[in-house]
Amino acid sequence: MRPVPADYRRKLLWPGSTQLAPVPAVLAGCGDGTPESPFNLITIAWTGIVCSTPPMISISVRPERRSCELIRSTGCFTINLPPASLAATVDWCGVVSGRDHDKFAERNLTPLPGTRVSAPLVAECPLGLECEVRRILELGSHTLFLAEIVAVQAAETLLDAGGRLHLDKAGLLAYAHGHYYELGRCIGHFGFSVRKKPGPRIRR
Amino acid sequence: MRPVPADYRRKLLWPGSTQLAPVPAVLAGCGDGTPESPFNLITIAWTGIVCSTPPMISISVRPERRSCELIRSTGCFTINLPPASLAATVDWCGVVSGRDHDKFAERNLTPLPGTRVSAPLVAECPLGLECEVRRILELGSHTLFLAEIVAVQAAETLLDAGGRLHLDKAGLLAYAHGHYYELGRCIGHFGFSVRKKPGPRIRR
Repeated sequence: MRPVPADYRRKLLWPGSTQLAPVPAVLAGCGDGTPESPFNLITIAWTGIVCSTPPMISISVRPERRSCELIRSTGCFTINLPPASLAATVDWCGVVSGRDHDKFAERNLTPLPGTRVSAPLVAECPLGLECEVRRILELGSHTLFLAEIVAVQAAETLLDAGGRLHLDKAGLLAYAHGHYYELGRCIGHFGFSVRKKPGPRIRR
Repeated sequence: MRPVPADYRRKLLWPGSTQLAPVPAVLAGCGDGTPESPFNLITIAWTGIVCSTPPMISISVRPERRSCELIRSTGCFTINLPPASLAATVDWCGVVSGRDHDKFAERNLTPLPGTRVSAPLVAECPLGLECEVRRILELGSHTLFLAEIVAVQAAETLLDAGGRLHLDKAGLLAYAHGHYYELGRCIGHFGFSVRKKPGPRIRR
């Protein structure tokens, strides 16, 4: 077994804070394209999967954000996984407001229609999730939306001839402690620690 | 502006699924160390921050897992961020059951006491969050725990002389589409897209 790294044993105690990492950094699409509810984008790191069956996702948004109103009024949103090449756009969509900016137009992003929701997807992102809000909880600084993922749109170029998704080719973005990262070296697949290694063949 | 990558425009449509990525891959500690509620660990990818003030986190656990009972009965858990060097242990803790294994002992991990919760932290992880359950929702295949992060324990060796955390030194683990990854190149910090670049000095 690997030795215990003695240098991690001594810990300092802090008050509670949002130190989960790494987390996703995704573009949430919202609005339905009408004058009252124009298409908008907001960068979200406070998101996670909350259920496998049915597939459900959570996103948390400050109620004062334009996107919070749009998601509440339309009952839907999309989650778009950006490649690391879009990091500056992802950052910008998180710091400016949809009240002052047409984020799709100003960042040269292309809205794609959802098949099950009125919110737009982002063509430049390799994977988009269409989400219908099921529950809304007010937690404090943030409104929590629990939503069912009702459809997924995946870029054809990430699929092999057998239709299998190769998400490692997408160059996805991660966020940790205030910084954006590319994904690095792949270490193993789920279950690799218990996979039986092929042993020498023994004649019996 | 960057050109629109034409190869992401053509999308295939799939039914809804849990395709958020990358997500964290963390070790949740639970149990209180009594014979009825022994210390246990479970690997969790279905987690996310749900509120900044108060700091809150969600984890989703299948009700048939031993850890789900332990978290429900003790009302608390810990979230430990593992370095990529622990990837095999993280994987193993996600595929075997605490009913059959003492995961701390078998993987040579060291339980550290929480200061606010009875659940154990993992000494070998550079950052640990102590979490008190506030709400429990049954969503389908998974039970969703919404918890307040009431304390954080951080490895001293990740702090600089000014007490600032350098989480990039921790070599954290990410999970995407069934594979574990190291974090790669740092692209920028939050707000980098709008930071004013220092211009040439102009005498006036």
